[in-house]
Amino acid sequence: MAGLILACDFGGTKLSAAVIEASELDQPGVAWRGHLRRFSPAGATAQTDIAMMMEMGRELLAGERPLAIGISFGGPVDYQSGTVRLSHHVPGWEGVPLQQLFAQAFQAPVRVDNDANVAALGEWRFGAGRGVADLLYVTVSTGVGGGWILDGRPYRGSFGMAGEIGHTVVDPNGPVCLCGKRGCVERLASGPYMAQDVALARGLPANEVTGKLVAEWAKLGEETAVAILERGARGLGLGLGNAANLLNPARIVLGGGVTKSGERWWKWVRQTAQATALPEVTFDIVPAQLEDDAPLWGAVALTE
Amino acid sequence: MAGLILACDFGGTKLSAAVIEASELDQPGVAWRGHLRRFSPAGATAQTDIAMMMEMGRELLAGERPLAIGISFGGPVDYQSGTVRLSHHVPGWEGVPLQQLFAQAFQAPVRVDNDANVAALGEWRFGAGRGVADLLYVTVSTGVGGGWILDGRPYRGSFGMAGEIGHTVVDPNGPVCLCGKRGCVERLASGPYMAQDVALARGLPANEVTGKLVAEWAKLGEETAVAILERGARGLGLGLGNAANLLNPARIVLGGGVTKSGERWWKWVRQTAQATALPEVTFDIVPAQLEDDAPLWGAVALTE
Repeated sequence: MAGLILACDFGGTKLSAAVIEASELDQPGVAWRGHLRRFSPAGATAQTDIAMMMEMGRELLAGERPLAIGISFGGPVDYQSGTVRLSHHVPGWEGVPLQQLFAQAFQAPVRVDNDANVAALGEWRFGAGRGVADLLYVTVSTGVGGGWILDGRPYRGSFGMAGEIGHTVVDPNGPVCLCGKRGCVERLASGPYMAQDVALARGLPANEVTGKLVAEWAKLGEETAVAILERGARGLGLGLGNAANLLNPARIVLGGGVTKSGERWWKWVRQTAQATALPEVTFDIVPAQLEDDAPLWGAVALTE
Repeated sequence: MAGLILACDFGGTKLSAAVIEASELDQPGVAWRGHLRRFSPAGATAQTDIAMMMEMGRELLAGERPLAIGISFGGPVDYQSGTVRLSHHVPGWEGVPLQQLFAQAFQAPVRVDNDANVAALGEWRFGAGRGVADLLYVTVSTGVGGGWILDGRPYRGSFGMAGEIGHTVVDPNGPVCLCGKRGCVERLASGPYMAQDVALARGLPANEVTGKLVAEWAKLGEETAVAILERGARGLGLGLGNAANLLNPARIVLGGGVTKSGERWWKWVRQTAQATALPEVTFDIVPAQLEDDAPLWGAVALTE
């Protein structure tokens, strides 16, 4: 069918929108017809963010009515009703009926889901997950979160909470996570936690170390950074191996800033994941391809 | 549709078969029309077991051609082709085309799956899992294995290996499992391993302690047995909590001998599972209802 699909991504303080021609989706090298990215200003609320996103959509559509709209939201969403549960970044999002608001404003069918599910769908439909029936997508960034494609369909869980690999426990004697448990994957493998651990071990102010710096120092051979990065990678690998034993996905796709930590990081992750999975439980672990645009591509796939 | 469904369960050395009237499946209190259980003799092979099972089927059907046949097999099965991969108990099972053999012998459509998947399906269709869309079934017995119902359908994984919760790691510094890893759920929570640990700690010959004895001693307050049983229950709870974070099933059903270890065991399992899952990840953990007959009921459901 010819016509435009509008994709929107509410990514915390970053708003992105893009349009694509529906009839071109299965063509090789399919590209956006238009693409906008804006930062929501200090003091933004749900209301101002929604107004800004609608304006971006109107600008991209230039008067055309879209065939469909897909929306990625950076926080928990009730997929059935397309209602936001809450945002950890911006006030006023509790219970906002995003699907209904966009459907009214643009007179088109709308689907809304959280960013991890949407990114998983994007990588599966347009990126590193093409061609497999069962996929786990994990973003390793300021947090660690995941999304599933199972039997060729997004899987969300009974209450929309599936994919919380960041808070699976891989070391009950490990360091304490903000969630109250010890040794969660996120506590070991996320950028801010690794930075915090390196800062503490080296007696540096916490605000002087970032996850990116830990990776750079590790590349230079700084011992504390190497040890913390390896612990994080192996903790993640253990969590992925456990997930593989439970669901037997053919592929695991990893995205997010921490995955830029170099070949050694990937080796630790893959080695530990494979050692944790049973010999018959086979899978590959590959880098995400769509990166920052994964939620937009996934939002497109959400409308199909 | 009126007619008989034949259900078969190759359960290691125990062969079970039963017939049921298809038109009665959704009636309350539906019961078997006939039910047989036989032990395969010492020296049994795949061939002799198959012959014995076919004889049981013919006896139950009394000349009638079945509408369909469902088969549960106690080992890995390729579900698509209905072929057995191998048996750990009886020789000669590698590559046996069970589906094809029964289809030819009984002139009826046949479906075959492994016992954990089939038991999950049975509990979901006829037992403790009725009415939920997403279910994890786990048997805690000589081993620890699981099966999934996701989005109202059995989920098997890309290569039929989903459900291996027994070999997810919950304590990387725990005791060594036969699989080579440390702190697998099965290493902590299965009957034989708990018995081994209690025997070792108390200086008893290994063959004098069983999982059942550990539970009985724990009820009497014997400290070693209490400690080992609690460690097993909490290890299982951690594995279940991790699985809940990953898949967000509405219900977890537990079957197998170890689940008869008393209220305290259930309390430890539930408490640890809930503490491991995020607060928004809610589920209940309930005992299996069909027990020994779960594979037969599941085999019936497999034909639907």
